[in-house]
Amino acid sequence: MKTISLGLIGFGTIGAGVVKLLQENGPLLESRLGAKLHLKRIADIDIATARPVAVDPAILTQNVKDILDDPEIDIVIELMGGYEPARSFIREAIGHKKHVVTANKALLATYGDEIFQEAQAANVNIGFEASVGGTIPIIKTLKESLAANQIQSLMAIMNGTANFILTKMTDEGKPFAMVLKEAQALGYAEADPTFDIEGIDTAHKLAVTLALAYGSRVKLDAIYCEGIADISQEDIEFAREFGYRIKLLALAFQRGDRVEARIHPTMIPFDHLLANVNGNFNAFHIIGNSSGSVFLYGQGAGMMPTASAVVGDIIAISREILKDVALLVPYRSLGEDRMADIPLVAFDDIRTNYYFRFMAADRAGVLSKISGILGENDISIASVIQKGRKKDGAVPLVMITHNAREKDVRIALKRIAELDVVHEKTTVIRIEDERLK
Amino acid sequence: MKTISLGLIGFGTIGAGVVKLLQENGPLLESRLGAKLHLKRIADIDIATARPVAVDPAILTQNVKDILDDPEIDIVIELMGGYEPARSFIREAIGHKKHVVTANKALLATYGDEIFQEAQAANVNIGFEASVGGTIPIIKTLKESLAANQIQSLMAIMNGTANFILTKMTDEGKPFAMVLKEAQALGYAEADPTFDIEGIDTAHKLAVTLALAYGSRVKLDAIYCEGIADISQEDIEFAREFGYRIKLLALAFQRGDRVEARIHPTMIPFDHLLANVNGNFNAFHIIGNSSGSVFLYGQGAGMMPTASAVVGDIIAISREILKDVALLVPYRSLGEDRMADIPLVAFDDIRTNYYFRFMAADRAGVLSKISGILGENDISIASVIQKGRKKDGAVPLVMITHNAREKDVRIALKRIAELDVVHEKTTVIRIEDERLK
Repeated sequence: MKTISLGLIGFGTIGAGVVKLLQENGPLLESRLGAKLHLKRIADIDIATARPVAVDPAILTQNVKDILDDPEIDIVIELMGGYEPARSFIREAIGHKKHVVTANKALLATYGDEIFQEAQAANVNIGFEASVGGTIPIIKTLKESLAANQIQSLMAIMNGTANFILTKMTDEGKPFAMVLKEAQALGYAEADPTFDIEGIDTAHKLAVTLALAYGSRVKLDAIYCEGIADISQEDIEFAREFGYRIKLLALAFQRGDRVEARIHPTMIPFDHLLANVNGNFNAFHIIGNSSGSVFLYGQGAGMMPTASAVVGDIIAISREILKDVALLVPYRSLGEDRMADIPLVAFDDIRTNYYFRFMAADRAGVLSKISGILGENDISIASVIQKGRKKDGAVPLVMITHNAREKDVRIALKRIAELDVVHEKTTVIRIEDERLK
Repeated sequence: MKTISLGLIGFGTIGAGVVKLLQENGPLLESRLGAKLHLKRIADIDIATARPVAVDPAILTQNVKDILDDPEIDIVIELMGGYEPARSFIREAIGHKKHVVTANKALLATYGDEIFQEAQAANVNIGFEASVGGTIPIIKTLKESLAANQIQSLMAIMNGTANFILTKMTDEGKPFAMVLKEAQALGYAEADPTFDIEGIDTAHKLAVTLALAYGSRVKLDAIYCEGIADISQEDIEFAREFGYRIKLLALAFQRGDRVEARIHPTMIPFDHLLANVNGNFNAFHIIGNSSGSVFLYGQGAGMMPTASAVVGDIIAISREILKDVALLVPYRSLGEDRMADIPLVAFDDIRTNYYFRFMAADRAGVLSKISGILGENDISIASVIQKGRKKDGAVPLVMITHNAREKDVRIALKRIAELDVVHEKTTVIRIEDERLK
């Protein structure tokens, strides 16, 4: 029986999960693959601290060259994360004609073009199913199962931490700051939670996903990105009155020759599939032009679910090695030489429905002033709630608009902010209203 | 640019969908594949009737030999359905070293072992993603994405017609017979709906799926199968009172060295993901030993969604042809030579919770007689509802049990049926109570 040799760089939580999975499901993997998977080396700066899995100390090394320069190692598994030295290690692995499996979305979102081009030139594979959606087979589904489709839309919950926080805020009525602390205590949020709550992690994942869905290189900073730190209990409550739940969504829509892509807290109808994705789960709602709706759901992070995706990639690449072929499926739906630069719709030009919460003086004429300015900017109002809950002399005035243009909304809100009857900053939350099923 | 030549056998709804998709998404497919897909021939007995898609009449033929004997044709797409002559045509295609794409679950469930063995010997691929779950990538997910997992459980809605009927019965309070007629009028149910409502179609799909999930040949008739024709409004109402919805589920569980597999109407908690799969949608809830829960949802049938899966397989096989390799991934997770015969748990030995609706005389002592017999057979009762709605002198007495053994239930119900206070046949519906999320 043939043996495929593996070298693991990064022996953290996910790395330990991969080792555990290779040990526990070893006989199963061997029978499915018809070959042995041999974890030959593990490189990490810290080889002293005990891990939740036992390994022969002889395979541990602090010198990554023991993996990169070993001609026997077929596949390098990069699970250290971050930009450097992960980027250099992956490029070096490619240079040594080794295949690579990685979960590093930040790296792929930023340096993906470089990595995939070098890998294609070297005829080695890059497995990255674990970089988006954890255990959910979103990469394979977009690249292979839905290959016959134009992707008309993608709506996704890609960050378990943000979803955990929003779920707890919604279900338990607690404020953002308190729930964030709880999430940190449970290990669901990092000490520095910026990447998760500001939507940056989601943006990395959306950039990786968009490239597959549209065969296009994507400029990460062209994606509009807004986090959840400003979501208040008040907005969650008003959303409920209108029949919505608030989720941090990654959204992408085909718009003629362009693609619209954005990340922001979004109100969606409570009976939408995505509205019922709770806790730290992730989910993807895709509409293809022939498939119709496809919905995928699972653990987007965590030791074993992520390891499941990493080892899935190891098996796929091993199957290629065993048949002596490489790159049966291009990394990103198309060969790298055929990737386009599909322009994104300017954020000013997006159109959607909006939720506004003004904090306004409880006085005659306020509603007419505000709605007047909205009307002058082509923003028509679908519903209004005005309630007497006074706070610092102001009452919330909540409006849901019909379809409006982002730029018009910004101009109108700037003028409204100048009114002396409007106190505080106006809250704006975008709505996806179609009950896509 | 290379060309892959296709021959289509069966120009019905799905066949026309495949042709439409190849036409409409042609340039997209060509750019993704880096090759042309050329539909060279379409064989059907009826080449006169107009289809919802225009084709050059010169490619139509009534003689399937024009496809099977054409050395230029690389992939045969079998979409005629049924056992014969589909089986002979597929075997002949394999004999001519042609790859095959099929949506024929009845054939694969019955003659899969033969077809896959012959195909492996001929080193040709068989694509069958469209045979289960329509557009949902359940085959690829089990075979590839979750390849690192032992599948601990699979719970699925695999038949859109049965799910459409149960959804309408639940939402609109209409009886089975009326809803079936409506489904037939809408084209959602066949004139002879036996396969759908008796669970036979679901059994075909479960047999195909189990073989992948457990690398095991499956005897179709070893799977317990019960349909939805006896579900009444009364049971739907009682289910609601207990917090359940009734769905026709295919269930499979790993039980040590055995696999438990069964199909029957099942009560599941209303907040279970599967309870919220409505209308003609399909869905799969899989638990892998490292992935945890994975949930996949989409259109399980229909012209374009099924065509999406068929063309996805065509692309996958074309990628192999272009790299001059075949069978990178075995048909059923393992090479056919390594497939086992995992025994199924005898249906008598399954354990689950049960819902019973007795129609009993409204008289003192009935409850004690019935519960006495249940107790003597190790069946303990979790809840009881007795209501005064009299019908032919009998009132419904409804019980939910704790975990009990099927055989004990049958023995107890036989004894209870002999009581003269019990009128009508007792309704039995199994419950899956874990709030698997």
